[in-house]
Amino acid sequence: MEKIKLVVEGKELEVPKGTTLGEVFKELGIKDAVGALLEGELVDLQTPLRRGGKVKPLFRGDEEALPIMRHSLAHVMAQALKELYGPAKVRLGVGPDTEEGFFYDVEVEGRTITEEELKKIEEKMREIVKRDYPIVRKELTREEAKELFKKLGERYKLELIDEIPEGEPVSVYEQGGFVDLCKGPHLPSTGKAGAFKLTAVSGAYWKGDASGPQLTRIYGMAYWDEEKLNERLKFYEEVKRRDHRRLGKELEFFTIENEVGPGLVLWLPRGALYRKVLEDYLREEHLKRGYQLAYTPHVGRAELWKRSGHLEHYKENMFPPMQLDEEEYYVKPMNCPFHITIYKTRPRSYRELPFKLFELGTVYRYELSGVLHGLLRVRGFTQDDAHIVCTPEQVNDVIRETLEFALQVLRDFGFEEFKLYLSTRPEDAIGSDEQWELSQKALEEAVKASGYEYEVDEGGGAFYGPKIDVKVKDAIGRLWQLSTIQFDFNLPERFDMTYVGPDNKLHRPYMIHRALLGSIERFTGILLEHHAGLLPFWLSPTQVAVLPVADRHHDYARRLAELLTAEGFRAEADLSGERLGAKIRKAELTKVPVVLVVGDREQESGTVSVRTKKEGSLGSMSLEELIKYLNELQRSRR
Amino acid sequence: MEKIKLVVEGKELEVPKGTTLGEVFKELGIKDAVGALLEGELVDLQTPLRRGGKVKPLFRGDEEALPIMRHSLAHVMAQALKELYGPAKVRLGVGPDTEEGFFYDVEVEGRTITEEELKKIEEKMREIVKRDYPIVRKELTREEAKELFKKLGERYKLELIDEIPEGEPVSVYEQGGFVDLCKGPHLPSTGKAGAFKLTAVSGAYWKGDASGPQLTRIYGMAYWDEEKLNERLKFYEEVKRRDHRRLGKELEFFTIENEVGPGLVLWLPRGALYRKVLEDYLREEHLKRGYQLAYTPHVGRAELWKRSGHLEHYKENMFPPMQLDEEEYYVKPMNCPFHITIYKTRPRSYRELPFKLFELGTVYRYELSGVLHGLLRVRGFTQDDAHIVCTPEQVNDVIRETLEFALQVLRDFGFEEFKLYLSTRPEDAIGSDEQWELSQKALEEAVKASGYEYEVDEGGGAFYGPKIDVKVKDAIGRLWQLSTIQFDFNLPERFDMTYVGPDNKLHRPYMIHRALLGSIERFTGILLEHHAGLLPFWLSPTQVAVLPVADRHHDYARRLAELLTAEGFRAEADLSGERLGAKIRKAELTKVPVVLVVGDREQESGTVSVRTKKEGSLGSMSLEELIKYLNELQRSRR
Repeated sequence: MEKIKLVVEGKELEVPKGTTLGEVFKELGIKDAVGALLEGELVDLQTPLRRGGKVKPLFRGDEEALPIMRHSLAHVMAQALKELYGPAKVRLGVGPDTEEGFFYDVEVEGRTITEEELKKIEEKMREIVKRDYPIVRKELTREEAKELFKKLGERYKLELIDEIPEGEPVSVYEQGGFVDLCKGPHLPSTGKAGAFKLTAVSGAYWKGDASGPQLTRIYGMAYWDEEKLNERLKFYEEVKRRDHRRLGKELEFFTIENEVGPGLVLWLPRGALYRKVLEDYLREEHLKRGYQLAYTPHVGRAELWKRSGHLEHYKENMFPPMQLDEEEYYVKPMNCPFHITIYKTRPRSYRELPFKLFELGTVYRYELSGVLHGLLRVRGFTQDDAHIVCTPEQVNDVIRETLEFALQVLRDFGFEEFKLYLSTRPEDAIGSDEQWELSQKALEEAVKASGYEYEVDEGGGAFYGPKIDVKVKDAIGRLWQLSTIQFDFNLPERFDMTYVGPDNKLHRPYMIHRALLGSIERFTGILLEHHAGLLPFWLSPTQVAVLPVADRHHDYARRLAELLTAEGFRAEADLSGERLGAKIRKAELTKVPVVLVVGDREQESGTVSVRTKKEGSLGSMSLEELIKYLNELQRSRR
Repeated sequence: MEKIKLVVEGKELEVPKGTTLGEVFKELGIKDAVGALLEGELVDLQTPLRRGGKVKPLFRGDEEALPIMRHSLAHVMAQALKELYGPAKVRLGVGPDTEEGFFYDVEVEGRTITEEELKKIEEKMREIVKRDYPIVRKELTREEAKELFKKLGERYKLELIDEIPEGEPVSVYEQGGFVDLCKGPHLPSTGKAGAFKLTAVSGAYWKGDASGPQLTRIYGMAYWDEEKLNERLKFYEEVKRRDHRRLGKELEFFTIENEVGPGLVLWLPRGALYRKVLEDYLREEHLKRGYQLAYTPHVGRAELWKRSGHLEHYKENMFPPMQLDEEEYYVKPMNCPFHITIYKTRPRSYRELPFKLFELGTVYRYELSGVLHGLLRVRGFTQDDAHIVCTPEQVNDVIRETLEFALQVLRDFGFEEFKLYLSTRPEDAIGSDEQWELSQKALEEAVKASGYEYEVDEGGGAFYGPKIDVKVKDAIGRLWQLSTIQFDFNLPERFDMTYVGPDNKLHRPYMIHRALLGSIERFTGILLEHHAGLLPFWLSPTQVAVLPVADRHHDYARRLAELLTAEGFRAEADLSGERLGAKIRKAELTKVPVVLVVGDREQESGTVSVRTKKEGSLGSMSLEELIKYLNELQRSRR
């Protein structure tokens, strides 16, 4: 019999090929292992060994063994479903482990599994874990397997058997009478499972095909210990609480309606007012820094997209063409060709450079409807897009200023932690060595000068130029990519962009694409989640709500709101005549940052009683104090 | 012989059918007539009469005879061309009279007629007029006519002969050997022509068919006397001087590029800055008046346009569809369905009405490329669009406020003369009597309250509701339609819009579409022409140019510009190092309203020397005086 060599915890040994690690560990007196790494690959104790190598036994609590445990819990869940709803009623799809747990796609005849049933399924799973069934692996011939799953009525499994490549073993795992087609690896027994919780149900198409049958996906989360599990569950509760789709509805910021089209955002009045404040801010900040403005159309002739190369390289991301006057037109996926056209309306002198053109440009890109997600992934969005055209001598200053600008803007929105990523020249790049060196040096110096943590992705740049990406860390530790500063050595060639140098000759300029927020839609989604809907004072659609205690305080409340409006704040008096409690709740729900309650005392003394969402009650203030306080909030962008 | 009855200057007479008015007038001793009105129809003296009636002889100087004279001048021009370039080289198309003159479409073999040649052609025309050729009418058979024009090589005329309906006479007019196929009417002789001038040449397709041969259209203007002609020529020079297409280029406001597409506007930096100021103003003015903002997508599902009725009634004005995910999407020709969708995101209470939703909404509409004209007729434009949803009780106040708002906005842009048009219920209208009465009464009252001149177009309203249009008179007396306030009884039904009334029941609201400027693009074209490019101070992209006399004044100039920028003005120091004269010319060309020249004297005394485009030199000012002056300009919107 053929032998293989193993090295287990430093000990060398030879065993017959086909021995399992369970047998080996027993021989060596290694107890309670739940799996192992064989030359770095995760394996279980039940599978006959086909090759030798270094073996590291894994035990409960080992991070590396989590996938095994999670995968076994998927089986435990499947078994629980069969016990609850009857084995003949439950048909199984696929049930893998995931980053933090597992899921199983299932079909339960005659019913839809709802969130309410998860508790019950979970209880049944705990029972099965407690029963501590050994998990047994068996290899079958294809015919045996087919016969087995046919008998079980598992039509999805039959499809999967057909997909197992010729020559690979067909294995099943059995536990307490429940058998599942599976490659493994699995725990030695159900009792070895860790802490878990079922978290959600959703629809899932069989094999992701929307025209095929729809199954129910049941999600679970699993860690070795309760503490870690609870910490992660709390994180996801927090993620849910901050979900911008819910907040966007509550705050009346935006809506996406099927009749209009998936991924197409309608900004509701409060969201639109916030967006106006944001856009005003962006335009002013750009003008201050010497940018010029542009407005360009949302459609353009195919000609333009042919020249830019988008039709060649980017067509699948574009909306389909419109046939007009025997020509094709496209809605724009990018603003670049328009900005370049503006640059080219007349010859440019080096004295005009750097030429910095800014547009809040609304673009449309095709995304599969399945990946659309609130504001975070949409089909139409507005970029805070600029193109900078400059001489080689200006590249350093331009990049440093641009990165500083990006970081300043992100800080103004309340982000404090940043991580920068520098992507450099890939294998099959265009552009000269000189261009790449000059650009990469400028990017690297700017990144270093910023003082923030950064990573270099060597060779990770686009074929047409290197870039910096800025990621922000949000209030619950998630990283989001926002700003990009991207060199482009391609479009200046394609569009034959030039400038007249001091030598009176034509030169090719450097061009940089950059967006600071990326898209207003996506940024707003992230901002809402970061602040859990409580936007900084300067960005809130309503900044101050004036709530009269009773009808007799309406005049005073209205006058206050008018006074604050005249001072430049967005203030509203609630004259609805509802009870004070209801008015306060409404202001709470729409997350108005500053609430002024005015009753007899305030009216008589000409004061206000101030409550803020962030700092709670600030007591009584005179109008002068109030205005000073509000101006300070506005100025500090808190 | 059949007789016909005529009444000439009160005198009744009978003449044989086929007699000409020339013969009749000679008989009656009426001298120097150039044509006549027969029962109100313009006729000449050469054509045999086929019917009787009241005859009014027309003489030189008679307004009503202008078309005859202009038509004859077209023939004179054709004859001049034949004499100048050789009869065999010139082929004639059509040559009618126009509102102020005439044109002829011609083909001159082997050459293109340019503006430079007009003088020469004009001289030849004066010669022919002086020769005073009698203009003789002849009727031919179709065969004779064909043979004649075949011999002359007039292939376009041959086509025209074929188009003369069976039974109509085929007539030609002959003068001094030149013969032309023509229905008339014409002067008795070339010497009766009035004052004229050739004004322009352009390309013109034969029968307007772009795939057919291209001819040259030569335009002339003609009046009876030189004075009137010169007045009108001056007016057209003024129109030319104010042409927003030329101004838009000089001021670097916008460009329309073939590669992007006809009718699609790119706003250049200076135009974009002006547009930003305009948009900021519009948003603020709307917010002040209780409007709420919206941003909506530029594309939407066919579903939406089906429901709104646009696909049924407006499809030919829409861009063609895009095929996406097996559905059709359209770029929007209007914002209404989106605004209604926003209204409908949740139930609305009467307490929220009037609900006034404002968007600077960019729409796309199909126009034939031939009618596109600068900014005045485009394919993509941004409307200052609002929809007002209100209760019947609110209709009066809403309409009055809206009209006042419109007029205030137009005054702020420097328009002073307005004419209002009220269009009322047409025959085949939808909506109840009550709706029409209430709406029309509100519109009429608002129009009367405005104090401006107005006209009622009885029955001229759209089938879905009555409206007010506001026209402005520009600086050279032209009327332009700008604001529209339009009721809509249709869409609230189609989209089932409702509000909850005080009775807690659902009611159908009134809805009003309104745009004050119409479209930003078209309005900007009109505004540029109205102000001949010299925009009011508050709208100028650069408001103040600071021009240092020499390099040693650069620091002072820069500090001044910074100071003014900090005060909220758009100020620029020209540090180009060019000579003062060149700097002044540049500021002149870009029509900067306020220019500050600073030299030794100003620098030492901390003053500025102020020149304005409108008032000329204002002499020396201290900085305090300057800022006060600029603030006054800004405040008064002059």
